[in-house]
Amino acid sequence: MSRFLNSRYQGLEAYTPGEQPRDMVYIKLNTNESPYPPAPSVVAAMDAKQVENLRLYSDPTGLSLKQKLAELYDLSVENIFISNGSDDILNFAFMAFAGESGAAFADITYGFYPVYGELHNVKVDLIPLEVDFSLDYKKYCGRNQMIVIANPNAPTGMEIPLWQIEEILKSNPDSVVLIDEAYVDFGGTSCYKLIENYVNLLVVRTFSKSRCLAGARLGYAFGSPELIEDLEKLKYSTNPYNVNRLTMMLGCETVDAEPYYQEVSRKIQTARAWSEDALRELGFCVLPSKANFIFASHPDIAGDALYAGLRQRGILVRHFTKARIKDFVRITVGTQAQMEKLVEALKEMIGGAK
Amino acid sequence: MSRFLNSRYQGLEAYTPGEQPRDMVYIKLNTNESPYPPAPSVVAAMDAKQVENLRLYSDPTGLSLKQKLAELYDLSVENIFISNGSDDILNFAFMAFAGESGAAFADITYGFYPVYGELHNVKVDLIPLEVDFSLDYKKYCGRNQMIVIANPNAPTGMEIPLWQIEEILKSNPDSVVLIDEAYVDFGGTSCYKLIENYVNLLVVRTFSKSRCLAGARLGYAFGSPELIEDLEKLKYSTNPYNVNRLTMMLGCETVDAEPYYQEVSRKIQTARAWSEDALRELGFCVLPSKANFIFASHPDIAGDALYAGLRQRGILVRHFTKARIKDFVRITVGTQAQMEKLVEALKEMIGGAK
Repeated sequence: MSRFLNSRYQGLEAYTPGEQPRDMVYIKLNTNESPYPPAPSVVAAMDAKQVENLRLYSDPTGLSLKQKLAELYDLSVENIFISNGSDDILNFAFMAFAGESGAAFADITYGFYPVYGELHNVKVDLIPLEVDFSLDYKKYCGRNQMIVIANPNAPTGMEIPLWQIEEILKSNPDSVVLIDEAYVDFGGTSCYKLIENYVNLLVVRTFSKSRCLAGARLGYAFGSPELIEDLEKLKYSTNPYNVNRLTMMLGCETVDAEPYYQEVSRKIQTARAWSEDALRELGFCVLPSKANFIFASHPDIAGDALYAGLRQRGILVRHFTKARIKDFVRITVGTQAQMEKLVEALKEMIGGAK
Repeated sequence: MSRFLNSRYQGLEAYTPGEQPRDMVYIKLNTNESPYPPAPSVVAAMDAKQVENLRLYSDPTGLSLKQKLAELYDLSVENIFISNGSDDILNFAFMAFAGESGAAFADITYGFYPVYGELHNVKVDLIPLEVDFSLDYKKYCGRNQMIVIANPNAPTGMEIPLWQIEEILKSNPDSVVLIDEAYVDFGGTSCYKLIENYVNLLVVRTFSKSRCLAGARLGYAFGSPELIEDLEKLKYSTNPYNVNRLTMMLGCETVDAEPYYQEVSRKIQTARAWSEDALRELGFCVLPSKANFIFASHPDIAGDALYAGLRQRGILVRHFTKARIKDFVRITVGTQAQMEKLVEALKEMIGGAK
């Protein structure tokens, strides 16, 4: 830290991204990336002309992509915001909508929410998940502060139903309810249609997971035109061109290749179901996941030992040190073949532990 | 604006990017983009495998690119920060380094500085440029607040010499001096070597102009390891993966193609010199530019009329409504052929105005 740093940020603890080791090639099940590449038509859309045109700025309005998304989801372009990944949108949302009354979110959820809270000097109310890691929607009703819920939640993978989100929306009419749907495309139920009835609903999504474009940096949000306008104002006051020109093009191609991504999602759900069964057979406690990852613990091996044993065997998963979940690991669902290797490795470790 | 927007941002006036019209094909001399594509080796580096790998996140540390830049500029990787364009870095710098004492910059300079000031609630002292649009360095000495100087300045294109920057650094030992070198590669003199002697110097640069990658979103900064660490902390608290994976690769290729970009810079400087002469012959007042644009006014035609007349003739330039410069237009230096068309159009307009 320099002696020039604004005192506001001196105590700030940054987010820790999943590790990207360089020492060897791992089976990477640690950052919820897709094991499948983008659709062949998306890959084929890249050509020399596109790269040459990088000399030009991208369209800061993102209109072409907004039009594609509007058509796919039957919305108006005024309902859509586009930015550099869903993290970027979450950051703007905390700036814009967590005012004096602050924000409320679960104690166990996406680890970036508390960082945004601290960054923007927001009063944060952490609401503990229940003992079984389910989320009691009643605890989010009538709070009159910004509500942030990842649905499905990370790292648990668990979902709350649409009617509970609607209750939360109804009972917080004067504050924004942000539903982070980063993982909704793996069998979850989206609440985005509710934006027609609730001006306080902001739905945040990403091309990083189900659209196989983590490295392209493309997130989007759905909401009332007023909420979208607020986010645009902050984007235009920060970095209006933040979405890469190639990414904008690839995003449009991705929307056109919807059937491919539905198929990818089906494959991941199938591998997830197989893995959940296999893990339970090995004695794991496995939370019911609607996401592209599995959150699991084993009675005989601690979370850090699971992480370390798998790493030693060439498989990366994510371990969190937070007390309530320190015995769990979060395992991204890869291909069937990768999941079989994971289960083999776990069998070896559990055999050794007994 | 929604009724949910934080009161802090309700009066915020966002930056206005240069227009990107869709009604017809213009000669675009309005946003300081390069008229030349990236180097052939950069274009050739893109292949299907790179696009397929977009399923993976980019390396948030940007190490490979930092190593390339460290080698090119004879610095250490700890002296280098990488982010989503230089705007992104300016935003972080205003957050980090404009504390209670605020920031000082010219009245006529990059239009985003006052937006960052307002966004981060920074006390801003505007220091008027002299009558001839030169910058009197003595007015920046001993201020003990963050100093922000674009060098060469935009939209004037004018430069201050190295020794004046050093005087400013010496006389503001307790605050950061940010030198924005977005346009330095077109014949200007960089001050970056001074980071070895001044821990308070931050030099901000971009691949958007001289490296023909405006649409790729890649900016970098040089400074003491402590300053870089502060910027990393803010990046890791906002959007750690904000640089596209393809962009990181293209950035590395760009550094390897340095001779190509030196040649591009020479071509632009030649076209700039030719255009300056031609404009002066037409009676224009032309400020002495070290950048890839020309700032000029004509005694017989107002700035908005220049802008409109050129637009009508298929040529886009940038006009600013600010009182002191409302009679000027900023003309990006394109290819020689484009500049000849510009001069033809101006001849026609001036003939008509007499």
